[in-house]
Amino acid sequence: MKDAANIDCLAHIHTLVAAMPGPDEAASALARQREPQLTKPAGSLGRLEEISLHLAAWQGRHPPRLDNLRARVFAGNHGVAALGVSAFPAEVTVQMVLNFQHGGAAINQLCKTFGIELGVEAIELDRPTADFTGGPAMSEAECLSAFSRGMAAVEPGLDLLVLGEMGIGNTTSAAAICHALYGGHPANWTGRGTGVDDGRLAAKIEVVGKGVATNRSDDPLKVLAGVGGRELAAIAGAVLAARLQRVPVVLDGYVCTAAAAVLHAIRADALDHCLVGHASVEPGHRRLLDCLGKRPLLEMDMRLGEASGAALAVGLLKAAVACHNGMATFAEAGVSDRED
Amino acid sequence: MKDAANIDCLAHIHTLVAAMPGPDEAASALARQREPQLTKPAGSLGRLEEISLHLAAWQGRHPPRLDNLRARVFAGNHGVAALGVSAFPAEVTVQMVLNFQHGGAAINQLCKTFGIELGVEAIELDRPTADFTGGPAMSEAECLSAFSRGMAAVEPGLDLLVLGEMGIGNTTSAAAICHALYGGHPANWTGRGTGVDDGRLAAKIEVVGKGVATNRSDDPLKVLAGVGGRELAAIAGAVLAARLQRVPVVLDGYVCTAAAAVLHAIRADALDHCLVGHASVEPGHRRLLDCLGKRPLLEMDMRLGEASGAALAVGLLKAAVACHNGMATFAEAGVSDRED
Repeated sequence: MKDAANIDCLAHIHTLVAAMPGPDEAASALARQREPQLTKPAGSLGRLEEISLHLAAWQGRHPPRLDNLRARVFAGNHGVAALGVSAFPAEVTVQMVLNFQHGGAAINQLCKTFGIELGVEAIELDRPTADFTGGPAMSEAECLSAFSRGMAAVEPGLDLLVLGEMGIGNTTSAAAICHALYGGHPANWTGRGTGVDDGRLAAKIEVVGKGVATNRSDDPLKVLAGVGGRELAAIAGAVLAARLQRVPVVLDGYVCTAAAAVLHAIRADALDHCLVGHASVEPGHRRLLDCLGKRPLLEMDMRLGEASGAALAVGLLKAAVACHNGMATFAEAGVSDRED
Repeated sequence: MKDAANIDCLAHIHTLVAAMPGPDEAASALARQREPQLTKPAGSLGRLEEISLHLAAWQGRHPPRLDNLRARVFAGNHGVAALGVSAFPAEVTVQMVLNFQHGGAAINQLCKTFGIELGVEAIELDRPTADFTGGPAMSEAECLSAFSRGMAAVEPGLDLLVLGEMGIGNTTSAAAICHALYGGHPANWTGRGTGVDDGRLAAKIEVVGKGVATNRSDDPLKVLAGVGGRELAAIAGAVLAARLQRVPVVLDGYVCTAAAAVLHAIRADALDHCLVGHASVEPGHRRLLDCLGKRPLLEMDMRLGEASGAALAVGLLKAAVACHNGMATFAEAGVSDRED
């Protein structure tokens, strides 16, 4: 009976993923029409031009707007943290959530810098997920509950959603998700996270391999429940809800992108509304981005998480929209647009 | 008599270059001391940490500050533009200067986005430099006059100087400077600029080769006069003046970096106070950055000039300073900094 209920829940998410809308062709067309009229050689703003087009297409609006910016950082605790996969003790998750709430973390300064409203959601920190080397990290019901928390966190009227996470042990989950979805050797997907030494790295690789062997499934949502974490499930939910509400998303580093990859494994265009803020130093991230066909906006050698790389990229998005919306056209400025 | 005066002027610049101060060790030490106390794994903010250290060292102040930001865009006209090396007519230089003054260009929107005060200096647009395939682009006196304009444009009290240029034909000058300073084949240094076709690219390569052959010198300042332009000389002057006044600099793309490279050719550490905002699509830029040992902050496939790539990078600098100055320390936040 309980299993039947879970199957219904998963089916519901699959239905929502199938219902994801595509880009708005009318808004795209207007953005494409305006760009070459602006006073610059065609294409000379490079990726800024692509960003404007992306935002118009996925907001379904031209001109695109970046007034109401929201960052959501989800936090969760992990059973595998007890296996010594992190350089920090599990208590740091809750300590850092307090630090977010008091304004002392990197993400607070980054959100202030770029005018982003920060919301932090600590998800049952007093109930770590189970050690996934011995069984699923979460029951499907637990996973779906966290997924729903993420969906509910996307309020109406946002112009952009910046996503990130905090959770000691969660690069181990990210590595396990990627290994489960894309294969290869666990070592290909496992990095030093916050900075583990060689001994812990070897142990971490073993944990990833064992976790995936224990929790095999063809359903990406079951992989998420099996080796993921509450904050990862919430991120996947937020990515889905944002798409349904026409809110473009900026993903952060390895853990955040691995969570989103679960949707991509269900439907190949599921992350088309997402930009990737930066390439993390965590080596699995670049490999994962290749699997997703995503080019990160920034390469700043960062590996902090907490949405820091995604928030940092918001400066580029604001610049792109300012140029697209604010520049004069050749006709307005009386500038010759080619040699005669 | 006139030559003697010129030699004196060049000698004066060489004296100033020799007098460039080094980084402030006390401010550097304070920045290095604070960074590992902040609530994040050591090194996890990557290049943002390097930026904070750079700004402290070159402002000679800890904490570093980014309140008074100035962009300077220098504009000049080029005799070689008449040889068909650009996709745009020479009149566009003055048209774009008007566009800057009316707030319609990309750089206006970027400066507004990041709180940068924009100053535009059009340098004798009605007197293009001479066609450098037949002799020097500028007399040494003309070159030094433009260089001094650049030096004078650095006002006291700036926290950061963002540099850029506008000048139809000036990627031809940039290519010639690089070819003169670093050798190789002119084709290695010559790109499509604003977007010339294959025929014009071939002509442009020939112009670069001829210009360098005509204006050979062991003195980088004579190379600047020989194949440079007024806006390039002004940029070199501004880079020097900024160093003397302890103002860190952000360089823009190929033309701007080529102008600064003239100082690097005189003294290997002359650009240590400069960050490079972005890697331009113009292929010579990356090659030049390798020669200078500089890694660009952004890779946005841009090739607009007018300080656009440098201004875009200012968002990263503001974020770096906000994190370094504003984050809580482990002790302040009660966060464990390692597993015991």
